[in-house]
Amino acid sequence: MNTNPGVEMINLIKCLYPICRSITGDGVRETLRILSDFIPIKINEVPSGTRVYDWNVPFEWNIKDAWIKNQDGQKILNFKDHNLHVLNYSTPVDKKVNLQELKEHLFTIPEQPDLIPYRTSYYKECWGFCMSHRQFEKLSEQEYHVFIDSSHEPGFLTWGELFFEGGTRDEIVISCHICHPSLANDNLSGIAVATFLADSLLKNRKRYSYRFLFIPGTIGSITWLALNEDQLSTIKYGIVLACVGDSGPITWKKTKQENSEIDRAVARVFSESGQKYELIPFSPYGYDERQFSSPGINLPFGCLMRSPWGTFPEYHTSADNPDFISADCLVDSLKKVTSVLDILEKNRTYLNLNPKCEPRLGKRGLYSQTGGDSSSVADHMAILWLLNMSDGKHSLLDIAERSNIQFRKLHHAAIVLKKIGLLEEKV
Amino acid sequence: MNTNPGVEMINLIKCLYPICRSITGDGVRETLRILSDFIPIKINEVPSGTRVYDWNVPFEWNIKDAWIKNQDGQKILNFKDHNLHVLNYSTPVDKKVNLQELKEHLFTIPEQPDLIPYRTSYYKECWGFCMSHRQFEKLSEQEYHVFIDSSHEPGFLTWGELFFEGGTRDEIVISCHICHPSLANDNLSGIAVATFLADSLLKNRKRYSYRFLFIPGTIGSITWLALNEDQLSTIKYGIVLACVGDSGPITWKKTKQENSEIDRAVARVFSESGQKYELIPFSPYGYDERQFSSPGINLPFGCLMRSPWGTFPEYHTSADNPDFISADCLVDSLKKVTSVLDILEKNRTYLNLNPKCEPRLGKRGLYSQTGGDSSSVADHMAILWLLNMSDGKHSLLDIAERSNIQFRKLHHAAIVLKKIGLLEEKV
Amino acid sequence: MNTNPGVEMINLIKCLYPICRSITGDGVRETLRILSDFIPIKINEVPSGTRVYDWNVPFEWNIKDAWIKNQDGQKILNFKDHNLHVLNYSTPVDKKVNLQELKEHLFTIPEQPDLIPYRTSYYKECWGFCMSHRQFEKLSEQEYHVFIDSSHEPGFLTWGELFFEGGTRDEIVISCHICHPSLANDNLSGIAVATFLADSLLKNRKRYSYRFLFIPGTIGSITWLALNEDQLSTIKYGIVLACVGDSGPITWKKTKQENSEIDRAVARVFSESGQKYELIPFSPYGYDERQFSSPGINLPFGCLMRSPWGTFPEYHTSADNPDFISADCLVDSLKKVTSVLDILEKNRTYLNLNPKCEPRLGKRGLYSQTGGDSSSVADHMAILWLLNMSDGKHSLLDIAERSNIQFRKLHHAAIVLKKIGLLEEKV
Repeated sequence: MNTNPGVEMINLIKCLYPICRSITGDGVRETLRILSDFIPIKINEVPSGTRVYDWNVPFEWNIKDAWIKNQDGQKILNFKDHNLHVLNYSTPVDKKVNLQELKEHLFTIPEQPDLIPYRTSYYKECWGFCMSHRQFEKLSEQEYHVFIDSSHEPGFLTWGELFFEGGTRDEIVISCHICHPSLANDNLSGIAVATFLADSLLKNRKRYSYRFLFIPGTIGSITWLALNEDQLSTIKYGIVLACVGDSGPITWKKTKQENSEIDRAVARVFSESGQKYELIPFSPYGYDERQFSSPGINLPFGCLMRSPWGTFPEYHTSADNPDFISADCLVDSLKKVTSVLDILEKNRTYLNLNPKCEPRLGKRGLYSQTGGDSSSVADHMAILWLLNMSDGKHSLLDIAERSNIQFRKLHHAAIVLKKIGLLEEKV
Repeated sequence: MNTNPGVEMINLIKCLYPICRSITGDGVRETLRILSDFIPIKINEVPSGTRVYDWNVPFEWNIKDAWIKNQDGQKILNFKDHNLHVLNYSTPVDKKVNLQELKEHLFTIPEQPDLIPYRTSYYKECWGFCMSHRQFEKLSEQEYHVFIDSSHEPGFLTWGELFFEGGTRDEIVISCHICHPSLANDNLSGIAVATFLADSLLKNRKRYSYRFLFIPGTIGSITWLALNEDQLSTIKYGIVLACVGDSGPITWKKTKQENSEIDRAVARVFSESGQKYELIPFSPYGYDERQFSSPGINLPFGCLMRSPWGTFPEYHTSADNPDFISADCLVDSLKKVTSVLDILEKNRTYLNLNPKCEPRLGKRGLYSQTGGDSSSVADHMAILWLLNMSDGKHSLLDIAERSNIQFRKLHHAAIVLKKIGLLEEKV
Repeated sequence: MNTNPGVEMINLIKCLYPICRSITGDGVRETLRILSDFIPIKINEVPSGTRVYDWNVPFEWNIKDAWIKNQDGQKILNFKDHNLHVLNYSTPVDKKVNLQELKEHLFTIPEQPDLIPYRTSYYKECWGFCMSHRQFEKLSEQEYHVFIDSSHEPGFLTWGELFFEGGTRDEIVISCHICHPSLANDNLSGIAVATFLADSLLKNRKRYSYRFLFIPGTIGSITWLALNEDQLSTIKYGIVLACVGDSGPITWKKTKQENSEIDRAVARVFSESGQKYELIPFSPYGYDERQFSSPGINLPFGCLMRSPWGTFPEYHTSADNPDFISADCLVDSLKKVTSVLDILEKNRTYLNLNPKCEPRLGKRGLYSQTGGDSSSVADHMAILWLLNMSDGKHSLLDIAERSNIQFRKLHHAAIVLKKIGLLEEKV
């Protein structure tokens, strides 16, 4: 799986793109079944009607077919052409309507007349279709036959979960929403990066435990939180992955805490990359960080994105298709989140065991006396900063921030200094 | 009184302008009598000689007439033409003097040769006149008759006070100085805005108690503080009003505490207005905030102004007359201070009663499911911020600062959320 | 000594310049002997081999002669021409070598071909010479006779110390390194300024005790700290003086604490000077502040410089000679460090004895009622700020920072206010 993750992520996205997902139903089940070919996710279900905090798990929605026929019996709109053509969670319908009534059930984007919009109506019962505004404008006065073969029945809400224990019970949650049909950046990109990240983390035992959640947006995270409330105390940080495949600069929406360790780890990864990036403030709008950051839950969850939701014209339209994203951007997002986790994994606090004045580095082979090549020894400034600040109160991340030395250089130097007995890890 | 407050404030100022006020005397009494036609102020007096901290209440000063006659018996300067012609608190005089001696008692502004300066000598006994430098330069060598019919006698220091109790004993003090003769911006503008503000606040019972002080500068506030020292603990904030009628941008001189709730309320009002404004740091110079901020009193008093004292050329001259100020600027100052008090009145802390995940807003009619018009429901982002931050530790002002949502929108949303049981006020 | 300190400092530097100093040996002894003609320093010695934390005091190094002769017996390089010609701490040698072997023991600076570099090898035994790269390039294939008459023998590490007690046992340490041979800015300038500063401080009893250390870099401060560990608790602040004679802007490398009283005193002196200056962050590289700031010692030591080490092309070359520095720059450095100590000496906290409202300044002669000349009274704004902030919690330095009034004006006003009983010093 690691020969060319960019190509493999694109292939996964193309495989998932045609499936009609929603917050419940067979689309989600099929999606999770495909993911389970890559990583050992556990598929969980909770019955419709279950009370989850202020909400109830809704009836399960499935759809077989949908179309609009004109008076000549020609299908002028066909669900099988594009999942977005049907209002997500639409009630079934099978009747003749005149133009006026039809228009009351049509959604378009006049400003982007060639695109089909993505619309949902999870909690208000109605039927509807989405089409390009150009098609809408050509509709003439006649009788139309509207047909939606959907079902709302007692069933389940379905999600995928992958947990693996590390050296401590403290866990980091990676969450992505899996409820969007035929939308590539939002959020097949998040699903793909989460899948490949999980696969890569699984290969080595880690310091932290990790939990990956592949869940329907909003109702999914609310359901998960309601069912797991007694286990939340071990969650240390969370990352929501969404819109990570487009060409926008890598972006972090900060946690509600704004300056938690994970915010600082992200800021280091971004600034050390030398690439363009954005750090945006927390707000109670966005993806599932909204639920994780609610005052009764209050976990430090941020959101990793490239272009934020709503800021790109392709957002929630038929233009958010696999052509809109690229293997390079997916790989870059995967690398960035991997680097963030790498800092969290390695961010330790050390004690200088020779705290009074500098130790004699030369006799320990850490000081190039000829002033020449230093590639074989740990970076000298990294060593000096580590020795100076390792009073048991400053972590590697603290030292990186103050010294502006790359975290990985500090970490490498810390390993060397620990090996020769100048530092010990504070536990 | 509320048909056109701008015109009414201008009329009040024009009515008060001709009165010769000082820190004591009949000018102050007459001024307060006129104000009592507008608002039910209580007039207080304290006898000359009363010890007030490091000071004593001075003898009362009154003046009937004053002039300078030339050798032909013509009055070349007449107090009845302009109150500023006499050095405020001048001792009486009635004698013939030559030009040289006369000049030792004349005050002019060479840089502004057409204006009469405003000068005082409260605590050093001397006599004097103020005139335009142009007139001064025309004085010829001859004998002059100088006459000032003033009196310094045991009497009283007089001030006006209006207190009305609100829902709590915590009080907000509005203070203005009333000791300046024939000066419009400094400070008939402050007197007028304070009067109309008091009138408006009196119409509805408030959360806070309010105390309006119409007092002579420096000695007035020192006297008031000395006599009321045992009641200062209920004072929460204070606003000194001065120079609020000119066309300069609205300006707040911060309290000594610099970031108290009232400073933050002012900053919100100013920034939400979209108009030019200034926030200037505290300094122990200025108006009576100096006394209220002294280390043994230490109350958070700021000063609301337009152009600060000493920064406009009309300051302390005959050019600070009713033409220098405008109804529009007075009204804007009145609106701004009203808005500041409105924030203080409404700034509460709430508890989210559904703190775990977001509540389902749709079923409560707070979420426009068709994505259409939201003017009938409270602003969606205001609701989300309120729910997210209402953990009992953040006030509406805290939330306004973090979200950058207008305070009044947050307040409106809080009322709606409280009504439907999602928030409760923390007491 | 105070007729013209600039000229006298230059003369001292010219006197010390020809001496071949190192971290031990007779050069240091001779240097300290000359300094003892100016100030009563005590000369201390500790034997070679003494364990000092992670280090041992090295063998003492002395050198009598050194040269390279060509095959014609001509001296092509002579230690007596320039101390830098010999690798500092070089082992002795007396043998014939071919060009290839010679080159392995030669140090040059190709980028600055006319300059002799300064190189040391304290802890790795080897012999070597330093020469200009221009000379190096002219060396031809022949037999050379290399001769270094140096000795490494059990002896002593030598340093100078001057302590004088002030009103409190709290002490301020002034430290400079004395181990560099024939280098003027680095660090004969530091030695000269420290010497003249000590002389000037000795003339009046001070609030603080002062300790001047004239010590070899690194091993000297480590030795001193190891031997005086039980006395460190009385050290309040330290200033390392180095490179204070060149024409660069005055520069302060902050203490590790970054915002201690001494950092703030330096910042005031620099900003009040109206001259260009630099404040640079702490880093664990540089001079002996490295040792004083190590986590087990952790004293607030900063470094006063003009051009920082390594940033000027003359650094550690034969171009760092007396022509590179100037009397004016030495005097300016001396004035700046004197002003910093002056603030620390005078930085007291006062209590306003009339804390409720302003006192009547006029009756105490502190208020110019005629509005005229105020040069005879203390600055009015300084008085107001002092009275306002002297609540026992704010020092003169705090008040200077908030008011942006010059420290010396505040201090002068505080003395006046104390004399007339409005302030008392908080002890």
